Amino acid sequence: MLLFIDLFPIDSKTIGSYHISMIKTGIIGATGYAGQELVRLLNHHPEVELKYISSRSYEGIKFSEVYPNFRDSITEKCVSMDVTEMAEECDAVFLALPHGLTFPQITEDILKKTVVIDLGADFRLNNPEVYKQWYGLNHTNTEILETSVYGLCELYRDIIPGKALIANPGCYTTCSILSLTPLLKNKLIDTSSVIIDAKSGVSGAGRSLSLGVHYPECNESVKAYKVAAHRHTPEIEQELSLAAGEEVRVNFTPHLIPMSRGILTTSYTNLLFDTTADELYRIYKDFYNNDPFIRILEPGYLPETRFVRYSNYVDIGFVTDKRTGRAIVVGAIDNLIKGAAGQAVQNMNIRFHFDETTGLKNIPIVP
Amino acid sequence: MLLFIDLFPIDSKTIGSYHISMIKTGIIGATGYAGQELVRLLNHHPEVELKYISSRSYEGIKFSEVYPNFRDSITEKCVSMDVTEMAEECDAVFLALPHGLTFPQITEDILKKTVVIDLGADFRLNNPEVYKQWYGLNHTNTEILETSVYGLCELYRDIIPGKALIANPGCYTTCSILSLTPLLKNKLIDTSSVIIDAKSGVSGAGRSLSLGVHYPECNESVKAYKVAAHRHTPEIEQELSLAAGEEVRVNFTPHLIPMSRGILTTSYTNLLFDTTADELYRIYKDFYNNDPFIRILEPGYLPETRFVRYSNYVDIGFVTDKRTGRAIVVGAIDNLIKGAAGQAVQNMNIRFHFDETTGLKNIPIVP
Amino acid sequence: MLLFIDLFPIDSKTIGSYHISMIKTGIIGATGYAGQELVRLLNHHPEVELKYISSRSYEGIKFSEVYPNFRDSITEKCVSMDVTEMAEECDAVFLALPHGLTFPQITEDILKKTVVIDLGADFRLNNPEVYKQWYGLNHTNTEILETSVYGLCELYRDIIPGKALIANPGCYTTCSILSLTPLLKNKLIDTSSVIIDAKSGVSGAGRSLSLGVHYPECNESVKAYKVAAHRHTPEIEQELSLAAGEEVRVNFTPHLIPMSRGILTTSYTNLLFDTTADELYRIYKDFYNNDPFIRILEPGYLPETRFVRYSNYVDIGFVTDKRTGRAIVVGAIDNLIKGAAGQAVQNMNIRFHFDETTGLKNIPIVP
Amino acid sequence: MLLFIDLFPIDSKTIGSYHISMIKTGIIGATGYAGQELVRLLNHHPEVELKYISSRSYEGIKFSEVYPNFRDSITEKCVSMDVTEMAEECDAVFLALPHGLTFPQITEDILKKTVVIDLGADFRLNNPEVYKQWYGLNHTNTEILETSVYGLCELYRDIIPGKALIANPGCYTTCSILSLTPLLKNKLIDTSSVIIDAKSGVSGAGRSLSLGVHYPECNESVKAYKVAAHRHTPEIEQELSLAAGEEVRVNFTPHLIPMSRGILTTSYTNLLFDTTADELYRIYKDFYNNDPFIRILEPGYLPETRFVRYSNYVDIGFVTDKRTGRAIVVGAIDNLIKGAAGQAVQNMNIRFHFDETTGLKNIPIVP
Repeated sequence: MLLFIDLFPIDSKTIGSYHISMIKTGIIGATGYAGQELVRLLNHHPEVELKYISSRSYEGIKFSEVYPNFRDSITEKCVSMDVTEMAEECDAVFLALPHGLTFPQITEDILKKTVVIDLGADFRLNNPEVYKQWYGLNHTNTEILETSVYGLCELYRDIIPGKALIANPGCYTTCSILSLTPLLKNKLIDTSSVIIDAKSGVSGAGRSLSLGVHYPECNESVKAYKVAAHRHTPEIEQELSLAAGEEVRVNFTPHLIPMSRGILTTSYTNLLFDTTADELYRIYKDFYNNDPFIRILEPGYLPETRFVRYSNYVDIGFVTDKRTGRAIVVGAIDNLIKGAAGQAVQNMNIRFHFDETTGLKNIPIVP
Repeated sequence: MLLFIDLFPIDSKTIGSYHISMIKTGIIGATGYAGQELVRLLNHHPEVELKYISSRSYEGIKFSEVYPNFRDSITEKCVSMDVTEMAEECDAVFLALPHGLTFPQITEDILKKTVVIDLGADFRLNNPEVYKQWYGLNHTNTEILETSVYGLCELYRDIIPGKALIANPGCYTTCSILSLTPLLKNKLIDTSSVIIDAKSGVSGAGRSLSLGVHYPECNESVKAYKVAAHRHTPEIEQELSLAAGEEVRVNFTPHLIPMSRGILTTSYTNLLFDTTADELYRIYKDFYNNDPFIRILEPGYLPETRFVRYSNYVDIGFVTDKRTGRAIVVGAIDNLIKGAAGQAVQNMNIRFHFDETTGLKNIPIVP
Repeated sequence: MLLFIDLFPIDSKTIGSYHISMIKTGIIGATGYAGQELVRLLNHHPEVELKYISSRSYEGIKFSEVYPNFRDSITEKCVSMDVTEMAEECDAVFLALPHGLTFPQITEDILKKTVVIDLGADFRLNNPEVYKQWYGLNHTNTEILETSVYGLCELYRDIIPGKALIANPGCYTTCSILSLTPLLKNKLIDTSSVIIDAKSGVSGAGRSLSLGVHYPECNESVKAYKVAAHRHTPEIEQELSLAAGEEVRVNFTPHLIPMSRGILTTSYTNLLFDTTADELYRIYKDFYNNDPFIRILEPGYLPETRFVRYSNYVDIGFVTDKRTGRAIVVGAIDNLIKGAAGQAVQNMNIRFHFDETTGLKNIPIVP
Repeated sequence: MLLFIDLFPIDSKTIGSYHISMIKTGIIGATGYAGQELVRLLNHHPEVELKYISSRSYEGIKFSEVYPNFRDSITEKCVSMDVTEMAEECDAVFLALPHGLTFPQITEDILKKTVVIDLGADFRLNNPEVYKQWYGLNHTNTEILETSVYGLCELYRDIIPGKALIANPGCYTTCSILSLTPLLKNKLIDTSSVIIDAKSGVSGAGRSLSLGVHYPECNESVKAYKVAAHRHTPEIEQELSLAAGEEVRVNFTPHLIPMSRGILTTSYTNLLFDTTADELYRIYKDFYNNDPFIRILEPGYLPETRFVRYSNYVDIGFVTDKRTGRAIVVGAIDNLIKGAAGQAVQNMNIRFHFDETTGLKNIPIVP
């Protein structure tokens, strides 16, 4: 890589076009929490020009009015554009919209002109019946759906470059699937035994106001929610089933805990054979051998969300319990980075043949 | 109950002896978090005179210097007394000490003179072998151990009145056992399937300084700890085995979350029969029919720790998942009240034939 | 006081009428944070029957659905009543409504039938011009206004018993005025020098949804707001001017900090004379000699909000700085208790000649 | 700037020497909170090789064991080196040590070999008498002290390049001085009127264990501490006096609030003339015209710590109050970045003629 420019000048008043080979990008739904993280990551990305920041709610308002942390860094106003318009001028378009709003918009024509990276749920489930069952909507764009790829980078790295539509996985699902796939691929566990108990910071609930996310209502408390009914369940089951080569059903239980960022999943599985944590360590290390963002923790260590905060890392650790014959796998991610915007950038990097870690190399920040 | 007095005068400079029939009590280890909650609860209790506040670390120092919330309420100094001394003058002695410090002290003679309510772990495990295995100590006082009762009030209410030594259960265990006992008593679940995923506020770690509880190290983060190795495991297994009539082994996984108070347990069990949440609701309501502190939530509702905070309540709710055949039971308590000091007072109430709810009737406080 | 009844039975399904001499009360606006604290305090109050819980938004819904901490304690549904209706059946009516909604409703007729304790702002400012200036509304009920009393109990205890309309002070104002009055009464400070820097937990912003109180927007951050423009300013100035015997203007700056409860005010004043903290201590102790809820801290100690949480206490401490000639006075209250519901109960106690501390004797709770 | 290398490779196992023109650096006291931030910032810095991480407490232990967020990023072990040793091999040595430990170590010989950037307090106060008065120690190295520069970059940018010893300012002081200097330089305020009310997150208290920073003791509470006695006071006064051209004494009151990061200062000053916020805005904009890290907020906006978090920015806003004749200036910084490690890097950049913003261009992160 040869650079001739001052990277990320702090006073860059324009989202510049100073790099001849930079790709042009746009974001639709940029003022949600995942959207604004994408703005930040793309702004820091050396190969990317962020051309359009679209937000229906904030059209005409300076992005740095909505998110004053961007003062002096982003001076553009929010526009209101749809994916068809953006496709004309952008090499990649990121969508961060509620489910149901995206699938009707995507056409073959759009996908000829641009790469769509969808942070929403509309193209994550391969089976439109399952989509209907969990989201209550008829997916009317199944031909396009068939051309898409599930953008869990560590599992689909080889397929992503040939795709024009990348369905960025959900936050809980990223952590759950990456935590469990090596066990299923290696047929180490009873596939009917999988239980995932997840804990999420509040930013996962988004920026829309609701009583449950009102500060005094969720501070100093913990609750389970959508038990046996959360929409990330079918996404997890789809990928674990593919890994296992048979249908896998899981219990997935999300919990809301009083912090802003981070997801921890604690997964319980019945081992088919007597397996030590050391053996699991080697199996996981082998499985994620070429994955720069996966950190497998040595036996004796377990993930904490603070150690991945603001980074694209996934930390995975495990304990085996001889008394019960179970393996307990703990995974941690930053829900807005590896669980959303960071993984979207990682997908873009893979798709456009940049180094996979470009713009994502920052070390997690404590305290 | 007939009262002739002004209850809890706010200016009570002396831990008074104004009620002829009041019992005299003392606390050893009063300056830990559970101990100071006990001071507060006993100070508000209309049938109790709190005569001695003992704390080796703070001997000679005013209790309200250690805990300034007690300014004007408690004017006494901490003393340094052992249980033998206190037994001479108190009807009930509460011990809140680290494990291993209590069992060598308790004698038949002491138990003839006073009722000992032990908030520590030394008399909770019926089998001294199990104690040795999990705590690494030889329990040298097994004769006394045999005379004790496991003070989980809802299960042992009938036995407690005849006992001089009451082993107050642990915080995690109280929530776990009460959440699961009806399922096991009614033989509704596969006894080998029990998984308890628990989340605790930081006060559960006590007042002793350690890096893991240093504010910037645990704020804004979540972690699992002592996975498959936490000492509350054998206590849970003991009681669940008794409920099931067969040996039960569980996976118990505690997590530390960034809040001061509260425990939530999410328990996973495989149902033996197709059972609805409505049926479970009726079974639990029947089981806890006479228990003033157990609130069984109707199907559709789940506990949140904030709704039991600062109270002696246990909230229990459940979801059944037809897809996987599991019942998920969620329990919530305040770890320092029902999980420690409140249950100790409840045990005292039962033992001394006070109304079980005396001094424990306060409504949980939000926000 | 002679009681023949079991106080606060935990299973009291009805807000009962079991005490012949109890006064009947009702709350309008009961589902805000201050309102629900009032429900809790009145439910625990031995001299009070809480007859009506009114909430326009939740009419017909069980109060314990809105606030599940009240499960098993309050089984009534919310009604929708106005003050005229309640006056017919209640000895005291509490209003917890936004400003502007109360003053048009209160009539002489109502005040002949019931005592109105208004937790809102409509009758706090003696001068309707000042009300107009700060609240932008013409106060059209000035005759009634003239009959009211500013219900800062420690200052107006002697007047309150003769009043039918009590204007309960604001949260910031209670802490500010009580912190500063002794200095002004004793003419110890330059009246033009008063600066009050206040820090509040988030519950002070109420239960209405807004982006500023969305968890991820206020967690892990601090900000000043409404600088030189907060509506508690004229209320503070009114009472400090009365204390000083001359017009006092202050700078009052509120800050929002990431916690649920509590207010701390740090007040800066220029001393007219060389005065030590010891001297201030004696002056404050004398001034608040008969006030059971004021705790003056000895020099060397300063208030922390946790030590007054969930109580009606006001903690006040001070430092004098010889280098600059200033006294810095720090005050702490629980914003929903002494800053709202607790003081309302205290006003009721005074008005109905109950012991001033009845129902308010609980010790602050830590951690 | 011409780079031929892949910046910040995520798998950089060695703190490499891959850049011929990179400067070599070392950190003494690297395992405190400021120290580890410095490790992170220097690791990301394109012009720097971080050669030594010294920590007496953790000698021989991998740095990523102490701070697991650095897993895969830093693989070195902590060494135990003193400044003399490091000076032999490093172009710049950063010290992050408690006061009193640094001044005895620095010699002319060291300063000939390396640039010392001291994050501690030993060389911040120009007058050793003042140092003695506030720190209780005789400063025995006054000759070296005279050669040092107070490294508040915005004020001493022109002097820093000629210096071998740079005293990095304190966190509170950075925010306070930068907030107030334009007012004093322009003689707009009564120099005797300055009051600074500061609020800090808990990381400012460092990583050493103490009860006040134990999670349950500082969560959900706010307190003032070291009122009229905090050691940052003389540092603030020194610089404000220099700005004013006369002696300035201030009241500085720090508060601890329950969050991990950030400082907000609210400063009160009496204006000498009728001045509008618009006028102040222009004055501040002019004053900080060439300062890439200072963001002056337009009237109507005020800083919040979250909008500077994890960045080197200082946000400054103000309100003028006609009623009282005061200007209230609010400043916000990240205490560990602009308040410590970031400013140290900024000083290094200036000293070594790098672009001042190199390695510090990251946008603040929310939520």
